[in-house]
Amino acid sequence: MEIGERGLIERLRRVIGAPGRGTVVGIGDDAAVLEPAGELELFTCDAFVEGVHFRRDFASLADIGAKCMTANVSDIAAMGGFPTKATVALCVPPGMGAEDVEELYAGMLAVCRRCGAEIVGGDVVSSREGLVVSVALLGTVGRERVVTRARAAVGDSLLVTGRLGGAEAGLRAFLCGLPDDGPVVETKRRHLAPTARIAEAQAFIDVATPHAMIDVSDGLSSELWHLAEESAVGVAVSEARIPLAAAATEVARRLGCEPLELALGSGEEFELLVAIPAPETERTIEHVSAVTGTEVTRIGEVVPAARGCTLVRADGREEPLARLGYEHLVTTGDVGGKR
Amino acid sequence: MEIGERGLIERLRRVIGAPGRGTVVGIGDDAAVLEPAGELELFTCDAFVEGVHFRRDFASLADIGAKCMTANVSDIAAMGGFPTKATVALCVPPGMGAEDVEELYAGMLAVCRRCGAEIVGGDVVSSREGLVVSVALLGTVGRERVVTRARAAVGDSLLVTGRLGGAEAGLRAFLCGLPDDGPVVETKRRHLAPTARIAEAQAFIDVATPHAMIDVSDGLSSELWHLAEESAVGVAVSEARIPLAAAATEVARRLGCEPLELALGSGEEFELLVAIPAPETERTIEHVSAVTGTEVTRIGEVVPAARGCTLVRADGREEPLARLGYEHLVTTGDVGGKR
Repeated sequence: MEIGERGLIERLRRVIGAPGRGTVVGIGDDAAVLEPAGELELFTCDAFVEGVHFRRDFASLADIGAKCMTANVSDIAAMGGFPTKATVALCVPPGMGAEDVEELYAGMLAVCRRCGAEIVGGDVVSSREGLVVSVALLGTVGRERVVTRARAAVGDSLLVTGRLGGAEAGLRAFLCGLPDDGPVVETKRRHLAPTARIAEAQAFIDVATPHAMIDVSDGLSSELWHLAEESAVGVAVSEARIPLAAAATEVARRLGCEPLELALGSGEEFELLVAIPAPETERTIEHVSAVTGTEVTRIGEVVPAARGCTLVRADGREEPLARLGYEHLVTTGDVGGKR
Repeated sequence: MEIGERGLIERLRRVIGAPGRGTVVGIGDDAAVLEPAGELELFTCDAFVEGVHFRRDFASLADIGAKCMTANVSDIAAMGGFPTKATVALCVPPGMGAEDVEELYAGMLAVCRRCGAEIVGGDVVSSREGLVVSVALLGTVGRERVVTRARAAVGDSLLVTGRLGGAEAGLRAFLCGLPDDGPVVETKRRHLAPTARIAEAQAFIDVATPHAMIDVSDGLSSELWHLAEESAVGVAVSEARIPLAAAATEVARRLGCEPLELALGSGEEFELLVAIPAPETERTIEHVSAVTGTEVTRIGEVVPAARGCTLVRADGREEPLARLGYEHLVTTGDVGGKR
């Protein structure tokens, strides 16, 4: 980096602006000082490595910053909470300057502003190769509104928000150099600029008693496995019910791959997978889509652990559910407090 | 890494143990769920990059983990607080296995246990080259006990804990391959396994009204500059009063460098630099050393901003204080909420 320490702090202070509500001391001291907010606090972190999680030739620095923040916001949303305060550690490779760091921050700050969060501290160090962005995010949640991954019960309906496959289709469209047109651009946008489902999570909690909720960060099949393992249950999901994004289906056709494979393995969708008592299914689907405008689909149900995780094919055959999303990030381990 | 995601989570859950007091949900969900603790909350983060902040040929993974955690604990201590909950994001290079991650965690957990903190979440991803450790740490502090960097006043005494220069001397002893003997081993240990000054910070606040406090992470001269800039004052420090570690002086002699230069530029000492009202000086020095067993030295005073940051030489000459600690990490920018 071609800028001194004080210069960079001053620039970032300007970009970040005045401390928000609940921030007694923000950027520039040994630690931020915060007023505790709400009944319970949420705490999560996620790291993103250039060449592993993002590429600077596909994505702008603002896009990268926004997505790193969104992934953390999505974790807070999936616990039933609202994001509040973040710290950001950047490892900056040779050749990146202060303007680049500012652009990255601009992307993160745009996401923060949309969801009422604030960056209150950080660290900028040099890396020898490749950019690393590490975000730690606090959130607040009511004591009666926490939803973990661990309480899904046999008979629960499994619901998912939105339509899946777009993020992975967009990534593959980039990787394969598909020429841009409507569906390709749509999936690329989905890959570059996903949204966290804060309002949808709240709507689920308002209308139903979710037993488990998880965000689709590693891919639907992977999240189904997480939910099943943490709740000590099985899941049975109907192939025909998985909501595919139309643009993803079209891109899959051009790439010669199965749309279903995209939908099951697509990471960083940030849709919600929710287990609710079966009798609440209809009114939940109705309420959440009415309040948020986001489609909600029942894709299957929670079954006894002995049945394992299965995919019910269109012809009624049941087969083991492959852990797809996991494969494309073979070396990624999720140790909690994280996506 | 040669281990699957679930396997690693399970191993780390075992290493970390059961959730502690105030942790409603620990490792393994989208985010940790915490009971808010205390009047005000502190939040800091620090990232450490292999080849920039540490080398695996000098330090064991346990040492590296311990020091990364200590640096964050030191930031919380320097605000007047106690560390509570941490998240850890690891970017793990090819060739590092689950045992290595566990050893890194063991070092971090040992520090946490000593200071009553707990790891409640994390992320483990792959890096293409080099280990990156990013810790985010929460702390708690009483409303009347927060000490920032920003309120030093003209006439204040500048105090420092402990003796300086050891960490940098130890690093140089490693880099130059000095043969091990008493002083060399002592400085190497100081470089590898520094301690955060939680009890000392509390003792300062108990007995005095500190106007500013900062931990020596980038080097004494650098911290003096930080304190002066954040408080909009100047500082005048006496060369003869800066407490040099005896082993550092001895190592400096062998390396043919100035002990004072080591003391001013030595980062990761994690001693405290504190500005207190002059009339409180004697009783503060007495109380803090009596309660903690740690030496406290008055090294100078706060002067008007117009006088700048100066070093008073033994012969009475005043010269501008060089920003030493900053130089050896030219590309490191500290943007607050950090060491």
